[in-house]
Amino acid sequence: MLFERIESKGLAQYSYIIGDRSVAVVIDPRRDSDVYIELALAQGMQITDIVETHRHEDFVVGSPELAARTGARAWHADAQLPYKYGQAVADGQVWEIGWFTLRAIHTPGHTEGSMSYVLYEPGDAPWLSFTGDVLFTGEVGRVDFLGMDRAPAMAGHLYDSIFGKLLPLGDGVVVCPGHGYGSACGSTIADRPLSTLGLERALNPRLQVSGREAFIAEVARKLPKPQYFEKMETWNLQGPPDLGTLPAPKSLPPTMFVDAMREAVVIDTRDMFSFAGGHIPDALSLSLDNLPSYIGWYVPPDTPLLLVMDDNDPMPAVRYLVRQGYDDIVGCLAGGMFAWSMAGLPLATTPLVRPADLSSHPHSWILDVRNPEDFVAGALPGAVNISHKYLAERLDEVPSDRPICTYCAAGPRSMAAASALQRAGHASVSVLLGGINRWAAEGLPVKN
Amino acid sequence: MLFERIESKGLAQYSYIIGDRSVAVVIDPRRDSDVYIELALAQGMQITDIVETHRHEDFVVGSPELAARTGARAWHADAQLPYKYGQAVADGQVWEIGWFTLRAIHTPGHTEGSMSYVLYEPGDAPWLSFTGDVLFTGEVGRVDFLGMDRAPAMAGHLYDSIFGKLLPLGDGVVVCPGHGYGSACGSTIADRPLSTLGLERALNPRLQVSGREAFIAEVARKLPKPQYFEKMETWNLQGPPDLGTLPAPKSLPPTMFVDAMREAVVIDTRDMFSFAGGHIPDALSLSLDNLPSYIGWYVPPDTPLLLVMDDNDPMPAVRYLVRQGYDDIVGCLAGGMFAWSMAGLPLATTPLVRPADLSSHPHSWILDVRNPEDFVAGALPGAVNISHKYLAERLDEVPSDRPICTYCAAGPRSMAAASALQRAGHASVSVLLGGINRWAAEGLPVKN
Amino acid sequence: MLFERIESKGLAQYSYIIGDRSVAVVIDPRRDSDVYIELALAQGMQITDIVETHRHEDFVVGSPELAARTGARAWHADAQLPYKYGQAVADGQVWEIGWFTLRAIHTPGHTEGSMSYVLYEPGDAPWLSFTGDVLFTGEVGRVDFLGMDRAPAMAGHLYDSIFGKLLPLGDGVVVCPGHGYGSACGSTIADRPLSTLGLERALNPRLQVSGREAFIAEVARKLPKPQYFEKMETWNLQGPPDLGTLPAPKSLPPTMFVDAMREAVVIDTRDMFSFAGGHIPDALSLSLDNLPSYIGWYVPPDTPLLLVMDDNDPMPAVRYLVRQGYDDIVGCLAGGMFAWSMAGLPLATTPLVRPADLSSHPHSWILDVRNPEDFVAGALPGAVNISHKYLAERLDEVPSDRPICTYCAAGPRSMAAASALQRAGHASVSVLLGGINRWAAEGLPVKN
Amino acid sequence: MLFERIESKGLAQYSYIIGDRSVAVVIDPRRDSDVYIELALAQGMQITDIVETHRHEDFVVGSPELAARTGARAWHADAQLPYKYGQAVADGQVWEIGWFTLRAIHTPGHTEGSMSYVLYEPGDAPWLSFTGDVLFTGEVGRVDFLGMDRAPAMAGHLYDSIFGKLLPLGDGVVVCPGHGYGSACGSTIADRPLSTLGLERALNPRLQVSGREAFIAEVARKLPKPQYFEKMETWNLQGPPDLGTLPAPKSLPPTMFVDAMREAVVIDTRDMFSFAGGHIPDALSLSLDNLPSYIGWYVPPDTPLLLVMDDNDPMPAVRYLVRQGYDDIVGCLAGGMFAWSMAGLPLATTPLVRPADLSSHPHSWILDVRNPEDFVAGALPGAVNISHKYLAERLDEVPSDRPICTYCAAGPRSMAAASALQRAGHASVSVLLGGINRWAAEGLPVKN
Repeated sequence: MLFERIESKGLAQYSYIIGDRSVAVVIDPRRDSDVYIELALAQGMQITDIVETHRHEDFVVGSPELAARTGARAWHADAQLPYKYGQAVADGQVWEIGWFTLRAIHTPGHTEGSMSYVLYEPGDAPWLSFTGDVLFTGEVGRVDFLGMDRAPAMAGHLYDSIFGKLLPLGDGVVVCPGHGYGSACGSTIADRPLSTLGLERALNPRLQVSGREAFIAEVARKLPKPQYFEKMETWNLQGPPDLGTLPAPKSLPPTMFVDAMREAVVIDTRDMFSFAGGHIPDALSLSLDNLPSYIGWYVPPDTPLLLVMDDNDPMPAVRYLVRQGYDDIVGCLAGGMFAWSMAGLPLATTPLVRPADLSSHPHSWILDVRNPEDFVAGALPGAVNISHKYLAERLDEVPSDRPICTYCAAGPRSMAAASALQRAGHASVSVLLGGINRWAAEGLPVKN
Repeated sequence: MLFERIESKGLAQYSYIIGDRSVAVVIDPRRDSDVYIELALAQGMQITDIVETHRHEDFVVGSPELAARTGARAWHADAQLPYKYGQAVADGQVWEIGWFTLRAIHTPGHTEGSMSYVLYEPGDAPWLSFTGDVLFTGEVGRVDFLGMDRAPAMAGHLYDSIFGKLLPLGDGVVVCPGHGYGSACGSTIADRPLSTLGLERALNPRLQVSGREAFIAEVARKLPKPQYFEKMETWNLQGPPDLGTLPAPKSLPPTMFVDAMREAVVIDTRDMFSFAGGHIPDALSLSLDNLPSYIGWYVPPDTPLLLVMDDNDPMPAVRYLVRQGYDDIVGCLAGGMFAWSMAGLPLATTPLVRPADLSSHPHSWILDVRNPEDFVAGALPGAVNISHKYLAERLDEVPSDRPICTYCAAGPRSMAAASALQRAGHASVSVLLGGINRWAAEGLPVKN
Repeated sequence: MLFERIESKGLAQYSYIIGDRSVAVVIDPRRDSDVYIELALAQGMQITDIVETHRHEDFVVGSPELAARTGARAWHADAQLPYKYGQAVADGQVWEIGWFTLRAIHTPGHTEGSMSYVLYEPGDAPWLSFTGDVLFTGEVGRVDFLGMDRAPAMAGHLYDSIFGKLLPLGDGVVVCPGHGYGSACGSTIADRPLSTLGLERALNPRLQVSGREAFIAEVARKLPKPQYFEKMETWNLQGPPDLGTLPAPKSLPPTMFVDAMREAVVIDTRDMFSFAGGHIPDALSLSLDNLPSYIGWYVPPDTPLLLVMDDNDPMPAVRYLVRQGYDDIVGCLAGGMFAWSMAGLPLATTPLVRPADLSSHPHSWILDVRNPEDFVAGALPGAVNISHKYLAERLDEVPSDRPICTYCAAGPRSMAAASALQRAGHASVSVLLGGINRWAAEGLPVKN
Repeated sequence: MLFERIESKGLAQYSYIIGDRSVAVVIDPRRDSDVYIELALAQGMQITDIVETHRHEDFVVGSPELAARTGARAWHADAQLPYKYGQAVADGQVWEIGWFTLRAIHTPGHTEGSMSYVLYEPGDAPWLSFTGDVLFTGEVGRVDFLGMDRAPAMAGHLYDSIFGKLLPLGDGVVVCPGHGYGSACGSTIADRPLSTLGLERALNPRLQVSGREAFIAEVARKLPKPQYFEKMETWNLQGPPDLGTLPAPKSLPPTMFVDAMREAVVIDTRDMFSFAGGHIPDALSLSLDNLPSYIGWYVPPDTPLLLVMDDNDPMPAVRYLVRQGYDDIVGCLAGGMFAWSMAGLPLATTPLVRPADLSSHPHSWILDVRNPEDFVAGALPGAVNISHKYLAERLDEVPSDRPICTYCAAGPRSMAAASALQRAGHASVSVLLGGINRWAAEGLPVKN
């Protein structure tokens, strides 16, 4: 029996492959779909069907391409939308997977046509529930995508789906959600890698409500939404462009890279310390680990991109980018920053300031780029809060005539924000070394 | 939060690492323990404690060595046994793992001092249960290790542990057992990679009994036990020899390999087709995938071994072997069978016979090496059944004056058995091509 | 300074990349050109130029595609031919590579417009000579491609090129040829991984002649030529189809594989012992190591192919095949031969016969598939010689009413030939176990 | 035929393996000797003999351990020294390697008992010359190890060895030296990856002299010598401690790392930009690529070490360190600098100063850490030159009451030097961003 959860790191997006005997089914595949093909190949299984839980907003779906590569049937949910590929899943539809049965259940709320899928053991005992963006660990799906006026109605549907259809399957049923800890598709998904309906019933804070109305009141809220989501929504209806294999960006020696910079944004995927020490002027600091979760807030869709890596392999970054539809990757810096430096080309720095030094030089404008709730819980005296997610649209709130010092918990967000400020023309931008973590560890004052 | 199940393939042995914030705990580590260290390293965590569920019989435990390498404390269960390392776990003992709590529960039955461990979420909600060899998916632990006279009493303890201590934790609790599908530590462990107490309560056939007595009647049975188990039992009390890193066997060109063969058994880890086509005389056919589950039935502990591989990497086989205490690996064949053949050295074959040919030449003695229950369900006319597990001790039942043809479902077991017969001196041994699967597909008669 | 020789195994084809400071030049690139891009990337170099030594016959050239991917200029030799891409190299043309200079020298003989390239140290001392298919280690280029009537004239040109242009560069100049030991592009290329003009002058048997006429007499010979060469000649003029990245063949579970077999040839890439033990009926035994050098003799260009591997990775075979223009790879067997066997599908064997058994059963027709010169030097009594390279066109010389036993030195060629005979309908085909090597080692008679 | 050059990066140390038919010989193996065993294994060859060209000073020799692991004979040169392992090579001694012959030639000069080895083709034509530290590409061996009083005599021996024994082998013989470009064992080894006696005769500047006396006058010079060389000399006579497999350092989470720092030196192997941006106070900046060539100048032998990496793999650094006898590797930082920063532990920076800013703030003491000859050829106005190799012993020349700014060509050496100054207590140390390369590119003044 084959069961694997495939995680797209950074997005915390989960897809699944289930197989038994000679057939396998994939749920919510991502765009770079080699992984499913290889898993099936190793088991001698054929991927016969691909099912989706809903029209995804945060990543490019891989169903049409995987279907073309394997001959599998692609099944989409959200039949109310004008899909250009595959067929719509019907409520109650079943697929036989060897000894097992997979059954679709209509669970609206996150979207109108969201489907969950339940895998039954022989004998019709439910075993696994693939809940898409309806039910997460410690969280439920967001309901604000159709606008805040429809959010209460959608929240009501969500309540009915969870309490009326999923939880009755039984406490012992395993929950296989569409996202995990760190995703932008839920507000506060818990860091619980495995869960069950029983655990969610007992521990998920959203489910500890006193009824449908209370649930609606809590859940019908507006959440942040990166700008690339709209492109995903379009692509995932019409079928995204074929990826084939990952596009290999041209490797550009420093002087060619300079030329290419005229029409592209430089993404520096090295870590925050490297970026602080020396970087290409105007580069954005989106370190590899954070690239998937940050890029949507910093770079508009369809922007031509150039990559700087700390080794000679651009492909991990490319893989992350095409998953979110950033397909226009012009090239990467051959030889890395050492070649750049050897070529005598311009370098900028983004100084890291020690807490004691910042504390004793009160002339900087201090920018807290964390989430508002963290800011409220404790911040540097005099700091102003603009979440780094909204910095691009709130740039005019940052004074242009003062030195800026950004901070977050320990660094990566503040470095990304600082790089965006430098790119926007701010001449004097620094970052608090060690973030508020180190600030507090040195006994410096934190205001509530 | 770090949660990983580490599977030792072939043995289907599961160990676990759980970590949160800066600390991690390992449960039932295997001997080659790099994997735990690397997982902790990547997360910046320290392994502070190592806990065992019981004194293992089927693999060499890694606790003492992992403790020495990391500075962690080693905790063993089965306090009634004379352990030479670590400290005994107390019933109810707790470990704090970041936000989580791990608690020991005494669950005797498989052994007298078996411990289960339950991980609690903050707020004391049970989340994961590490049930060792007490409760598997679709099976319970065997109770025959202390002898059949004590088996009923042990089965009673097992009933009390499962029904009295584990199941009451709640249907939604995830089950993390010590073994999975394919292990020799349970009779018929189900192929269900994820399970919960609720699912086991509903689906595990052993738990569908009408009470304690019925449970005892069903469970108190004698099961096969490979001969290396006794060595494991000794080693796992006294602490096995330090492994350090994996021992690299000497690479021996063909002529040196011949010399070494005088005092060692040749293990051919290539697949059954390769072995059939040509092999070193007297070699045993234990293909890499099956090596961990077959070796214990074919080779006594402490036997010096020589390896034949189909590539130039002996280490996967070495890794498997040292996990079961086969540490005396003398060398491997450099250049593989092609070098052997080029050197003009002797070659033997083990012919694969087509079903139609076997059917039309009725002079062979046909040996079915599958489990007795499979034999009873349907076999070749005239076949005799000796499970390949017991062939070594029942060799005298095989006639020495007739050609032998072995078969199983599709091949690997019958090839292993055939190689053992050739090694024992049988001159004419063949294997049914495609096993009973192909025999039946060709419409040849199967008797019930 | 960057200098790498890139070998395409099996073809023994050598390409080179030379770089200094920020620029690099590639000589005779193969079709799967990632390797050049990665080498330049790691050094921060730009591939500015790609040069060819001649119109290649034995592999698909990568110049047009590599040029498109890097922006480099592509330069072809053989200006007399109607090339559809790039520009023709002029005799004496130079390229500056950092501190070094590369210069083209017209060295006809293998083809009319063959070019060699010489790399000069600063100060104009010749260092490396890239001699294409003009001069190899221990051999010179073949001159029979324009027909045997023109061969003597071409041999004369070759003499002039080697003795008049290359050797005068000086004994200390390193020789970097287009092929090494094992290539079909020279009769008996020596197994000398590094050489110099001085060594070739002293040791190359073709250069130990007493003058131009003697050289012509020795060199103007007809040599074997696989049928795919003509396709290469066409493609390498017009520019081959873009490869992009390697095509991933569909993974087909056994039942789908059976369907696909109706229109494709099965290539079994496992080793000879595996094939002997059990294989898909009608499959050709072209083991991975030998695939590049055998395929051209066994399979016509443009044949649809199916792959059987001994692991789950078809890509090494795919890489070999597309290098020779076998682009139509329909799929590969998912789950390997074990899945095939488990599915109860038909299996064939190609028995390996022990020397003593063959010797005592004189009724087989014995086929020696080695080269004629090996046959003449010593063979099995009664054997007939047909080189496996010509077996496809000489099939009618093999009797259809007798059992056939093939042999070679130790196995792979005889197994490939045996599989071709089975595919052609011969019912009883076996292979001599261990080849003539083992036969002789057992003291059995060899006739001269 | 097997011929491989194995390079130890950073040290630019070359060892070789030569094999034919079933036997192989290794020349000057390094300590981590798996590579030789794997190469022989893949070819089905046995390593029968290990030969050394001389008593090495810059790396730990692997002969005794490789001999123990393979059963090969170990042969050392320099018979005049009191070796504790192996046997001394005799002048003219020969080894048969399949069809080839290897012959020892006594070539004193670098040491008294240096041996070269020449591989002859069948028929006694010399093909490859393994010249150890006698003859490099573009350089000859240093002669100052026995003291400057004996240097002229040694230089005379070197002349006789090269002109009297090696060059007469013939221009076409390939040169396989003991070191390449970048080694500390020759002053200015050329960046010529392949060479021949003919090329060296024509191009090697040391060989363009007018006679023996002129050669001695040029060559008998004192060269820099890292402090670890003496330990190597001792170990390589007595036989170094067995390495077994590479020691895996303990992975220490941040708080444990802090404890360990009390008795060990922290080596930060990340690149210079990362180190500049933020590092552990008192860490030395020895980035991975430069670690082998820098460590000997910065860290005394037998110093306990701690490692900081930019990924989670300490083994590349460990491999480099044990090659030079730095075996006492206490641990590595688990979770990297991000975990350190998240833990709120102290961080230091080493600011990179832009050329324009340094230029306009003339109060820094400017330290050029390049080689004296580079300094003489052009430097920043007012700069003082102390090669980074001698900084440890010339620390008192650096003023303690002024800010220091270090520079080199583009960065790594100046960052290493800056980190050593910070470790020595200098409070204000910066590094010129982009080095003199960028300074000059900005049109700032360079003095000659």
